[in-house]
Amino acid sequence: MKKDVWFEEKVNDQVGQIVRVKEVVLSERTAYQQVDVLDTDQFGRILILDGAINVGEKDEFISHEMLTHVPLFVHGDPKMLLVIGGGDGGAVREALKHPVDRIDLAEIDQRVIDISRRYFPSVSCGLNDPRVSIHIQDGTRFVADKKSTYDVIIVDSTDPVGAGTALYEEGFYRDVYGALTPDGIVTTQTESPFFDRNIIRDLYPKLRRVFPVVCTYFAPVPFYPGTYWSFAFCSKGVHPLNDLKPTKRLTRRIKTRYYDEQVHRVAFILPACFRELLQGDK
Amino acid sequence: MKKDVWFEEKVNDQVGQIVRVKEVVLSERTAYQQVDVLDTDQFGRILILDGAINVGEKDEFISHEMLTHVPLFVHGDPKMLLVIGGGDGGAVREALKHPVDRIDLAEIDQRVIDISRRYFPSVSCGLNDPRVSIHIQDGTRFVADKKSTYDVIIVDSTDPVGAGTALYEEGFYRDVYGALTPDGIVTTQTESPFFDRNIIRDLYPKLRRVFPVVCTYFAPVPFYPGTYWSFAFCSKGVHPLNDLKPTKRLTRRIKTRYYDEQVHRVAFILPACFRELLQGDK
Repeated sequence: MKKDVWFEEKVNDQVGQIVRVKEVVLSERTAYQQVDVLDTDQFGRILILDGAINVGEKDEFISHEMLTHVPLFVHGDPKMLLVIGGGDGGAVREALKHPVDRIDLAEIDQRVIDISRRYFPSVSCGLNDPRVSIHIQDGTRFVADKKSTYDVIIVDSTDPVGAGTALYEEGFYRDVYGALTPDGIVTTQTESPFFDRNIIRDLYPKLRRVFPVVCTYFAPVPFYPGTYWSFAFCSKGVHPLNDLKPTKRLTRRIKTRYYDEQVHRVAFILPACFRELLQGDK
Repeated sequence: MKKDVWFEEKVNDQVGQIVRVKEVVLSERTAYQQVDVLDTDQFGRILILDGAINVGEKDEFISHEMLTHVPLFVHGDPKMLLVIGGGDGGAVREALKHPVDRIDLAEIDQRVIDISRRYFPSVSCGLNDPRVSIHIQDGTRFVADKKSTYDVIIVDSTDPVGAGTALYEEGFYRDVYGALTPDGIVTTQTESPFFDRNIIRDLYPKLRRVFPVVCTYFAPVPFYPGTYWSFAFCSKGVHPLNDLKPTKRLTRRIKTRYYDEQVHRVAFILPACFRELLQGDK
């Protein structure tokens, strides 16, 4: 008899996504979280942390490209990078396409890195690059004592539950501010503007109290329930559109499948119905 | 005991969306399809045709604005309109914001209109306007004998199952072509570029064989599973960006919550990963 197994991820207590499972590859309780690896036809292999799909092999390039190339192209000459979370390696892989000097990866859970190396080779492929230093450490602690060190910080976090909660606190973003150079930029995923409005209403005022520039951009991430996903670009003054450097020289050498300069520019256009939610306009 | 009832909509046999149900308002088998009306917290009241959510009260403005204002603003002076399907009235409501002379609505199922009038007053509110003529008729037949009549035709259809199947056929679009004036435009929803690739791969070549101009645009529609939704703009030559008329005068009088000129322009930007799927590029 054919198995009919579905994985269900509820976003809040009102809505969720289901995906058919071909095979359960791994199911493990680590010191920090529940980790599951499933094979699906829709998303390819998926990495689930505490019940939330964090990586879908077929489409992860969209979120990792948008988290990474947006700040790196705006900065123009990024040398020192920090990725917080992101133990799967997707943000690191994208960042390594730029001529960076060093990427620190602060991931709290060694098992996420081990599991990604073994089960997600197309995502974790950059983790052995000599420019990458892996720190198995709480990202909030790692960043706390760094001062004016990083050109770009990428917070590649899971949802604000379990191990991810601390990455949604104002104190964390104050430390991120301190760790950035004067023209530094931080990006992070900020959930669905339809399904996670309470998280957005909580997070954006915190970001705005810390950073002079807080802009929202969008990209579709189909393995996140709700697909249409928001990201925050925060800086001490650098603007994601006005300061975007000409990317032609770089993009001839940097291969992407979703990100390009035009996609970058239109991702920041906010339709009226999201302005109150995301900009605090009345 | 508190009820825990969920409505589940599978997109294909691989993925789907679930939404918590507060109350079942109506469940009826009409001559053409199964119609269900449910109350939910996430989407407000929803209208379900043959198992697919067609209208979510809180967010329907996005899809109806994008189906309607995109072609109407490009045309610039639309007088004669045809809406095929769309018995809920949402497309008609948006179209009536323009100084049109007449809107023919061809809806096959009288019950959809009755149910929308009764249970979705904020959506159906334009159906009694004197400029609107309702034709309870198969849209494919209604359009077949019209020649060079309509400035804009909006195909506001459900998925290509049951009553909606005929609205995805090449012969239907040939008749639509014939019914359009030389500067006429047709728009229609064309499903999720992530979850409905087979439908898109089937439909777009048909559209391209009929219309010289076929462009895809995107908008998020959260009550459709997959949210990130594609729409087709087809014409005999009119281009959705190059021929967009200055909309300032009109938009001062036309109130929208999602659509504006900037949103219109960026909705047509295709990221690289969708170009092969949607433009037939190799």
